[in-house]
Amino acid sequence: MLVIWYLSPEVRARPVTNTPNFKTAEALLPVVAQDATSGQVLMLAYMNRAAWEQTLASGEAVYFSRSRNRLWKKGEQSGHVQRVKEIYLDCDEDTILLKVEQVGGAACHEGYQSCFFRQWDAGELHVVGTRVFDPKQVYGSSTSSQEKSP
Amino acid sequence: MLVIWYLSPEVRARPVTNTPNFKTAEALLPVVAQDATSGQVLMLAYMNRAAWEQTLASGEAVYFSRSRNRLWKKGEQSGHVQRVKEIYLDCDEDTILLKVEQVGGAACHEGYQSCFFRQWDAGELHVVGTRVFDPKQVYGSSTSSQEKSP
Repeated sequence: MLVIWYLSPEVRARPVTNTPNFKTAEALLPVVAQDATSGQVLMLAYMNRAAWEQTLASGEAVYFSRSRNRLWKKGEQSGHVQRVKEIYLDCDEDTILLKVEQVGGAACHEGYQSCFFRQWDAGELHVVGTRVFDPKQVYGSSTSSQEKSP
Repeated sequence: MLVIWYLSPEVRARPVTNTPNFKTAEALLPVVAQDATSGQVLMLAYMNRAAWEQTLASGEAVYFSRSRNRLWKKGEQSGHVQRVKEIYLDCDEDTILLKVEQVGGAACHEGYQSCFFRQWDAGELHVVGTRVFDPKQVYGSSTSSQEKSP
């Protein structure tokens, strides 16, 4: 315990967990996925502790899908996985930022590079993103029941 | 109603709300704030419908602070407001992306440009961000009870 006296006051003031602050095994934390090269924000998803551990173990993003109610490896159907290049935690350790290489060039199940492909402007939504693939060709006719967003 | 027949099948398939999908007045949606110039992800916060409307009306980011349990204009104490340059909604319309000009150069109450100032690496957290200000000088001695993160 003596080592604690050699830590700075700032470090002593907060518990150093070195892991996101999952208060329970079921707790979900938001995860921002950002393209490691372009800096484009690709999507927001959620992780529980198991998703975090599987992401670390595999080096590819695994989320907890609230709509599927299960762990969801991004790209498990499409092959458009996210290779994790860097991981950051925020000051509260309750949000995760992943810098990723997006295989296939599109994070969004609608075929766009980013899920944020529509810009809001005075009450109108304008599509500003570039479509990389046709969802029907990647997922078949029923996209909504298959590769949907988190 | 006739106009609906002139919309593409894709547009007809989903309700166009032109606003984030706040299911209730109390519902909170995650908001990613990104530096409009550098592309750096600054922080993640939350908005309810009132925060969204105040953000639109003022042109500066207003969030709902879960710790304060009230609307929270970012920078209300420090002056480090976020001027909103662009707004994007994701494919589900349940996450908001703001591209902002961060007044003062630091979004984090700990004085760093970004709340994601620590990189996770094999179980260690390394401070990689640049500290722009000393929180004690901006907020006084009790940072945790004043300008804390969302």
